[in-house]
Amino acid sequence: MKTSKELDGPIRRYIMDEEPANLIEAARQYPYAGGKRMRPAMALAAAGAVGGDVSKAMPLAVAIEYIHNFTLIHDDFMDGDEKRRGMPTIHVAYDVPTAILAGDALFAKAFQIIADLDVPDRSMREILRYVTQAVWDLARGQEMDVNNERRIVSEEEYIETIRLKTSVLFAAAAAGGALAGGADDGTVRAIHEYAMALGLGFQIFDDYLGVAGDPSKTGKSVGNDIRKGKCTAMVTHAVRSIADPAVLEEFKAILGDPGATEEQVARARSIMEDAGSIAYGRRLAQEKVDEALSKLDVLAPSEHKDFMVALARYSIDRES
Amino acid sequence: MKTSKELDGPIRRYIMDEEPANLIEAARQYPYAGGKRMRPAMALAAAGAVGGDVSKAMPLAVAIEYIHNFTLIHDDFMDGDEKRRGMPTIHVAYDVPTAILAGDALFAKAFQIIADLDVPDRSMREILRYVTQAVWDLARGQEMDVNNERRIVSEEEYIETIRLKTSVLFAAAAAGGALAGGADDGTVRAIHEYAMALGLGFQIFDDYLGVAGDPSKTGKSVGNDIRKGKCTAMVTHAVRSIADPAVLEEFKAILGDPGATEEQVARARSIMEDAGSIAYGRRLAQEKVDEALSKLDVLAPSEHKDFMVALARYSIDRES
Repeated sequence: MKTSKELDGPIRRYIMDEEPANLIEAARQYPYAGGKRMRPAMALAAAGAVGGDVSKAMPLAVAIEYIHNFTLIHDDFMDGDEKRRGMPTIHVAYDVPTAILAGDALFAKAFQIIADLDVPDRSMREILRYVTQAVWDLARGQEMDVNNERRIVSEEEYIETIRLKTSVLFAAAAAGGALAGGADDGTVRAIHEYAMALGLGFQIFDDYLGVAGDPSKTGKSVGNDIRKGKCTAMVTHAVRSIADPAVLEEFKAILGDPGATEEQVARARSIMEDAGSIAYGRRLAQEKVDEALSKLDVLAPSEHKDFMVALARYSIDRES
Repeated sequence: MKTSKELDGPIRRYIMDEEPANLIEAARQYPYAGGKRMRPAMALAAAGAVGGDVSKAMPLAVAIEYIHNFTLIHDDFMDGDEKRRGMPTIHVAYDVPTAILAGDALFAKAFQIIADLDVPDRSMREILRYVTQAVWDLARGQEMDVNNERRIVSEEEYIETIRLKTSVLFAAAAAGGALAGGADDGTVRAIHEYAMALGLGFQIFDDYLGVAGDPSKTGKSVGNDIRKGKCTAMVTHAVRSIADPAVLEEFKAILGDPGATEEQVARARSIMEDAGSIAYGRRLAQEKVDEALSKLDVLAPSEHKDFMVALARYSIDRES
């Protein structure tokens, strides 16, 4: 995505050299390393799509990316992940206290940037409301994820978890960008709903890639989610669709077994395939993205609106 | 302190029952459990002392206490502390992920409360600037503390660390309270300086209590800081004042030795006593509090100003 490069400069503008140097380096590592940068891209596009000055939304875009990176640092430690973007994660490259503090520091920096946004005081306050609510929800979503490990939840619970873990920050980025661009309440609301649905589609498709994607492109082994017992929409679909009790038992026994063999993983995958669960996941992601796109009718045509459409399509048309 | 009880109600007003219940409970534990609550008391007193409506500063007082508690949750995990206020710490009572997320959630909630403050938009923005800077600095201070373990630093470095770890949040509370009370810039600045100096005095006196206090009242064993090798103003004084190289070697060998006997701890303490270091710590704390008090000349007499004076005196006239 083109915008990703444009963000390289601004993303390096807010974390000054200060003591202690190890904390500053640790806080910079993820934001400087790149990534998809969909959230900041969305903030910028939303500001432009409502007819606003995109540059006014740039600091907000950076703040949103810092918040995303703060949650990645903490989540990587909690999940015991040792690599991200080809590099050791922060708790591995530094140590656990530094990882926790680097996350906290990025979080604080994001709100410092928001406090200084060059937008009317009233808009800044509204943006702050969206972003703080998102961070509160992110913590709830991650806790639910931790609680749900190796438990089969309902599709409703699964959707609520990914809404909190993924959609709310997308939605805060988009609504915040629209506010920075000077949008009226109705437009802000529509853009918020667009991003909320897009976030669901993005995450459902991410789970789909986890079982149906090409491991050489996703960077994840196909068995990863199955061995972890990740309860995705596809898994909940399989559990309620498998007719034969023996097959259901077999499926449940493989799911969440860290020692499952390649053969067992392939068997679980083929059970899901036969139950139509993998196709179901793909379809559900598409539905969410269609819903997202339908919210954009309030916007006049523009290259920024086109970009928002492209972002939605990209979220379910990617290989990694 | 009287204000501590008055805060019990408001402190329970902002964290609603929500899912997941274990995260909500974990986030509530420290704020609900009490503590000195000096920071919120300072926010309220500052609002009143500048002639403002104290009730307008109440939500800010709660937000500041949540931020303090968020840092305690994360610090207790990093420091490996297992008890606080007579109860198991969050990572012990729940688990590590829940402790990290409960801290993050309290942090987010604090800024949600600030976004909704019933003060002019412009004042809210200023308050946000003070508080976000404080949280950024708190992370830096805690990292320095971690980096400095078992190292002897200069008094200057020590003062910088406690300025970041303690003073900045006191100062944000006081300046924020003054802003919520409608104070002019000069008054806000004076109150900020008052709280900054008070925070230094408070922390230096805390370290003093750690070696000179009554363990039955402080709840800390006298040997704790010595065995941890905590580099306080008293320790830096001792290191630069002990004339006999053999005594200095002996002192350094005991400092930071987790297995030091009661006898060795008593010996280290008596070396510091002989070098005048314990008296020096007490005196330095007094100087900082005198400096704090001198900043209050800008305020007209009021019960709130009296309370601010009392808070400063209390910070170096307490047994725990």
